[in-house]
Amino acid sequence: MTTYEKRRGALAARIAERNVAMAMFEDTEGRRDPSIRYFSGHPGDALLFIAADGRSLLVPWDVNMAASMASIEDVAAYTDFARSPFAAMAGALERLGVAKGSVVDLPSVTPYPMYVDYVEACPDHDFRCVEDGATSLAAEMRAVKDADEIATYRKVSAITDEAMDEIEKGVRSGALATETDVALFIERFLRQKGCEATGFETLAAGPSRSFGIHAFPAYTAAPFAVEGMSILDFGLSYEGYTSDVTMTFVRGSTDGKRGEMIALVKKAHDDAIAVCKPGARSRDVALLVDRIFEEKGYKMPHALGHGVGLEAHEAPAVRSREDNEWVLAPGHVITIEPGLYDPEAGGVRLEDDVLITESGCEVLTHARIVLLG
Amino acid sequence: MTTYEKRRGALAARIAERNVAMAMFEDTEGRRDPSIRYFSGHPGDALLFIAADGRSLLVPWDVNMAASMASIEDVAAYTDFARSPFAAMAGALERLGVAKGSVVDLPSVTPYPMYVDYVEACPDHDFRCVEDGATSLAAEMRAVKDADEIATYRKVSAITDEAMDEIEKGVRSGALATETDVALFIERFLRQKGCEATGFETLAAGPSRSFGIHAFPAYTAAPFAVEGMSILDFGLSYEGYTSDVTMTFVRGSTDGKRGEMIALVKKAHDDAIAVCKPGARSRDVALLVDRIFEEKGYKMPHALGHGVGLEAHEAPAVRSREDNEWVLAPGHVITIEPGLYDPEAGGVRLEDDVLITESGCEVLTHARIVLLG
Repeated sequence: MTTYEKRRGALAARIAERNVAMAMFEDTEGRRDPSIRYFSGHPGDALLFIAADGRSLLVPWDVNMAASMASIEDVAAYTDFARSPFAAMAGALERLGVAKGSVVDLPSVTPYPMYVDYVEACPDHDFRCVEDGATSLAAEMRAVKDADEIATYRKVSAITDEAMDEIEKGVRSGALATETDVALFIERFLRQKGCEATGFETLAAGPSRSFGIHAFPAYTAAPFAVEGMSILDFGLSYEGYTSDVTMTFVRGSTDGKRGEMIALVKKAHDDAIAVCKPGARSRDVALLVDRIFEEKGYKMPHALGHGVGLEAHEAPAVRSREDNEWVLAPGHVITIEPGLYDPEAGGVRLEDDVLITESGCEVLTHARIVLLG
Repeated sequence: MTTYEKRRGALAARIAERNVAMAMFEDTEGRRDPSIRYFSGHPGDALLFIAADGRSLLVPWDVNMAASMASIEDVAAYTDFARSPFAAMAGALERLGVAKGSVVDLPSVTPYPMYVDYVEACPDHDFRCVEDGATSLAAEMRAVKDADEIATYRKVSAITDEAMDEIEKGVRSGALATETDVALFIERFLRQKGCEATGFETLAAGPSRSFGIHAFPAYTAAPFAVEGMSILDFGLSYEGYTSDVTMTFVRGSTDGKRGEMIALVKKAHDDAIAVCKPGARSRDVALLVDRIFEEKGYKMPHALGHGVGLEAHEAPAVRSREDNEWVLAPGHVITIEPGLYDPEAGGVRLEDDVLITESGCEVLTHARIVLLG
């Protein structure tokens, strides 16, 4: 049995428990969902139907790609349904023999008008579109990495660490002098190492732009790591799994506010990681950091972290909002990324990826705040 | 009056005609909508509320960025609403004085479960989420480029043409030898020219991968433009507006199937552009190309083209599906991108951007199928 069969089987069992006869997953422009890759190996632009009895059907846009990448028992071309998800749904219900009157789970991100169209196209089935449906079950499954996925994370983390070492060298030597230099070094390096792509757009913000949480544009021809604080936030994607790290480069004095911000961010990073372990509520980890900053009169404008995997942002959440109820568990891979931003002093952020283990946690990556003097 | 004020005023008038009291736009991870940039100048991660009386409110995540980029009369930090769209909606209804019982338009991509949550959070208003709501009105407005936008398109097209010339030279000289070489040349070139970013991930597929419509990964360390057919599909984004072109590089013989495919794609490209003019149904343009291919026993697995603008894919649609009812009009900027793909011969695609003018059309870019001999 392949990994993909096992995963589909596990999902089928979970939906069967809930009396759901079939679940649909959709990956399309505007609604990307790597769960299709997780369950079938197919990288995207497809619908995936998984029935409670374990049978499944992939409906890819590109059947040539499916033939080479998907691991699944049944494939039907999306073009055979004129690329209409409603026609494909009707076809899947018939092909998988889903009984009339039974419950069909739609992705929780299905737009309201599309929900109405599914109901009209397939009036004999009972469509459900809820926050805690199969989309959420898949997110829960994906949040806990299995042995293969952890092995992948060790690989991508080692490549990411190597990239950070090379970037530090390049910045110190002057070879990487602009935001573009740094970002393109990463693009070339990752492909030489067998990675697919960056996990998200590399964010390289020199001192004039580092006060923004997510500087815009992501990188420019402007100087990087000149006087002040520069932020580099990037991730490498290996077999679909992305790392996510942030380094800060500081040129010039670390007296005054700048030094205080750097010390606080470093302390927040280290103290947060020290309490990451199975059973800890991720909200408490985030609240710990909020307190460290508040005591000195600072406030972080973003979450402390997030799960990573096939998406740069996935479960579990690591933030102090009251609606966050995640409890850390072995196999979770999360980021810890405290940051502080000031329109004048600039921004500083330090981010690493952390694997929750049986006994505590393992810091997978080794980002740093580089003091260039 | 700024361009942004004019645009917001035009939308306000359109929703007022429909007895909608307020429309909401949302740009967030998983649901990107550059309409917020179109109406306010703010690049994203925000909510935008526009009332029928013309007043508006921007709720950005990053208030520092809004202070430097947004052009709007009222701003409230998203963090003041704990980054809850439901809390922000309640706040906007109050701040803009939207009468109880009146109709509020939600983005047409609002997930079904969120729709339910808006209704619960603001029970005194009548929420609508429909395909032809304000999202669609904004798409219609954005489809027709104004004089400023057309000037931007001339700029980004000229830079794109220059990039294509340089790429052809680099491939011919051997300086650009891998998929990565070509993709990173583009990344550096565009920033030197003042562009923000690529409009979408550059797709550089050497002969072993060009049979895929959208090769995966987008580019690798593999050779480019060696024996066979290689596809390069890229776009440059200037002030948010993206170009979108595809070149094909052919090394070796053009006898047999390969030559037939190349000639057909070239003919489809030229014949389609020849009939692009105001009043033409874009579906008819697509059907013309379908017929050219069908006569020779080929079938194109994707749409002929699409509008471009602040998004790489936007209105108007240019495809042969029956649900496409767009009529070309002056100010539309569309791609024409016929392509044919064969698992053995490889793929060939030729794509240019075309501005519909008062009297016909103007081809903005000058892509080519490069025969390397």
